[in-house]
Amino acid sequence: MEVELKEMMNDLDSLMQSLTDPSHRAPIDKLKLRVERLANFGNFGPSRRTKVKDMSAEVVDSNPYSRLMALQRMGIVQNYERIREFSVAIVGIGGVGSVAAEMLTRCGIGRLLLYDYDKVELANMNRLFFRPEQVGMTKTDAAVQTLSDINPDVVLESFTLNITTVQGFETFMSSLKNKSFHPNKQGSGVDLVLSCVDNYEARMAVNQACNELNQTWMESGVSEDAVSGHIQLLIPGETACFACAPPLVVASGVDERTLKREGVCAASLPTTMGVVAGLLVQNTLKYLLEFGQVSPYLGYNSLKDYFPTMEMKPNPQCSNSACQQRQKEYLLVKPARDAATKAKMEAEASSSMEGPLHLDNEWNISVVDDTEPDRIDVKSSDALPEGLTHELPSADEFQTVCTPEAPVSAIDDIEELRRQLDALNST
Amino acid sequence: MEVELKEMMNDLDSLMQSLTDPSHRAPIDKLKLRVERLANFGNFGPSRRTKVKDMSAEVVDSNPYSRLMALQRMGIVQNYERIREFSVAIVGIGGVGSVAAEMLTRCGIGRLLLYDYDKVELANMNRLFFRPEQVGMTKTDAAVQTLSDINPDVVLESFTLNITTVQGFETFMSSLKNKSFHPNKQGSGVDLVLSCVDNYEARMAVNQACNELNQTWMESGVSEDAVSGHIQLLIPGETACFACAPPLVVASGVDERTLKREGVCAASLPTTMGVVAGLLVQNTLKYLLEFGQVSPYLGYNSLKDYFPTMEMKPNPQCSNSACQQRQKEYLLVKPARDAATKAKMEAEASSSMEGPLHLDNEWNISVVDDTEPDRIDVKSSDALPEGLTHELPSADEFQTVCTPEAPVSAIDDIEELRRQLDALNST
Repeated sequence: MEVELKEMMNDLDSLMQSLTDPSHRAPIDKLKLRVERLANFGNFGPSRRTKVKDMSAEVVDSNPYSRLMALQRMGIVQNYERIREFSVAIVGIGGVGSVAAEMLTRCGIGRLLLYDYDKVELANMNRLFFRPEQVGMTKTDAAVQTLSDINPDVVLESFTLNITTVQGFETFMSSLKNKSFHPNKQGSGVDLVLSCVDNYEARMAVNQACNELNQTWMESGVSEDAVSGHIQLLIPGETACFACAPPLVVASGVDERTLKREGVCAASLPTTMGVVAGLLVQNTLKYLLEFGQVSPYLGYNSLKDYFPTMEMKPNPQCSNSACQQRQKEYLLVKPARDAATKAKMEAEASSSMEGPLHLDNEWNISVVDDTEPDRIDVKSSDALPEGLTHELPSADEFQTVCTPEAPVSAIDDIEELRRQLDALNST
Repeated sequence: MEVELKEMMNDLDSLMQSLTDPSHRAPIDKLKLRVERLANFGNFGPSRRTKVKDMSAEVVDSNPYSRLMALQRMGIVQNYERIREFSVAIVGIGGVGSVAAEMLTRCGIGRLLLYDYDKVELANMNRLFFRPEQVGMTKTDAAVQTLSDINPDVVLESFTLNITTVQGFETFMSSLKNKSFHPNKQGSGVDLVLSCVDNYEARMAVNQACNELNQTWMESGVSEDAVSGHIQLLIPGETACFACAPPLVVASGVDERTLKREGVCAASLPTTMGVVAGLLVQNTLKYLLEFGQVSPYLGYNSLKDYFPTMEMKPNPQCSNSACQQRQKEYLLVKPARDAATKAKMEAEASSSMEGPLHLDNEWNISVVDDTEPDRIDVKSSDALPEGLTHELPSADEFQTVCTPEAPVSAIDDIEELRRQLDALNST
């Protein structure tokens, strides 16, 4: 539209020059004014919100951050403005990832990295975020368009690529390592990776990247029947990685293109995906801004409004070598960390019995309370909390199936295994 | 913008007529073409999604309902297309109500009635839905603009009014009674009212209207510190009404304008509000389309990811006379209903042990299972489920305070009571 308006202005200028009668100049000047006014309309001018230098707590209608800075006055968050220092990568800009991106953008996150290779379709309109006029755009372009209008303070970087391809994975890795936003940051260039993908292969790619980079991440998923979902926190070496245990109550791993080809499709609902995105970003805010208890795993069964929680320890026999390496490193630092946590908790308990919870919780370790989640040892995971089932075989079985000699049949074989499991579950 | 483009076209037409040299007509024709193209841009033409006559389950990218109709094939919903017959009224188009409206719109609800009197401000941008370019518009106008673009199949009716004023309440009542959308519908003209307001007075107004009309409704609220919320189902005569018991974990009743005047403001988060909206609309879909278990009350404590549930029986001494009348009516029909439900359950149990849950659940009664919610007798409600507290005094106390002789001081007195309760809770 901007291009169209510029060309219109050029047309009017050349028309003006070709006219000999000066009385015709006034109407053309009037038309030029109208074009200028159109250029200032909607997203192209002054009504677009301008950047804000500092987050103010001032209570005026024109302050987009007043309701967030109020979290400090309420004693929930110690320093809300720290949110501008954080970088979050979101892999998969679908029904969950796009809403997660919008929530973080409205919260004023420092920088968002967005990854997707798909295009917006009318078939996506039953979930929040994308609009019909964006049909045909890549999801990354459409997301950048919407998010930059909502909050121009957020640094947006988008990557239109498939992380399960060799080249896509390389670009994904190097983008996570890029420290230009925060040159002095320890570790990778991002503070958290959110996986919002809809298939097993992409989750395994995120898992591989995060294990290699020692990068904490959160997993999310919604079931194929649209009525349940989950979020999960994964800290390399400290919690189970995605290859340590078969995934729990997870989207089925059936690629949407496969479904379309077969003339069937997975169901989805804006409610379930909105709830899962909300729980995911709430956990992200608790993790980054250090308040409340960060959930290691939280399920959502919408038919019963049942929300199981649990923790999963890493599998010492995990088939992922980077995970094994991170486990060894964690065992070395664990005694010192435990001692530091204990000392800190004792100091807090003696100095003040009131005050906000976990003001300074460097490792985001939550105190075990009476609603303690079930702790699962992945090697003896027959005893799962009520309502949770394994949706896929273990990663070991998966990797046996995915022999390099027969990569093409891999997905079909997993499909077959999944169907067998489903059949078992439904009896 | 449409106006601007039309006037531009008129200007070009009159310029064309005033020109004597025919060689100048071509550039003007070109300009007119450009204006037409602009008029077709964005929301003003063919890229806007057209109406769909029937909901199709066909799996093509261009079908906006394929992922919803898939709920039938998955055995979740028996007849998804029934959603087009339902009317839902949403009172309060703020952080929860606007997202609830968007979810229902994307689900293809038949008709939405929207009520609010407020305008969009930049201070609302930390919650989902509204965009900075809508600042200054009424929330109802901005919502209709966005929702009609997303799904033109939904019939939208908006009411820019305050339901707590005498005239606003009258218009609210008559709009709920209007049956033009479904002339043969029993009861009122809507199937469900969703209360998404942020203050006690407005909730009491919704309660009064629904008790008078014998209208089932759902209540929602988010706490002033932004980290907890709840949803609640209210069936006049059958469950507690809003006046039967003091509200539980509810938004504080502090009006945003009061807060602004005092230079303080309540905190809010897009995550908490998105989760509450998602749980509210999920309960709405379960109620309307008869699947899963409709939750009578569901709380959300985001700091601990704790979700308490319970049921509240009506208070035989409720101060609301319409509630008392509905309770009497319910006691008369209850024995026949209980018998019908029991017979139906036995028939279902004997005919088929499998199959979808509650295919034909006319009264939306859920089977008591092992995750049975706590049942609260409002007259002995000292024993609340863990994590729930009364946020306000009981309605009886409220109505004692609200004597007609001193209506102006009422809000201040409630404020004072609330502050005293908060002080008690924080010790």
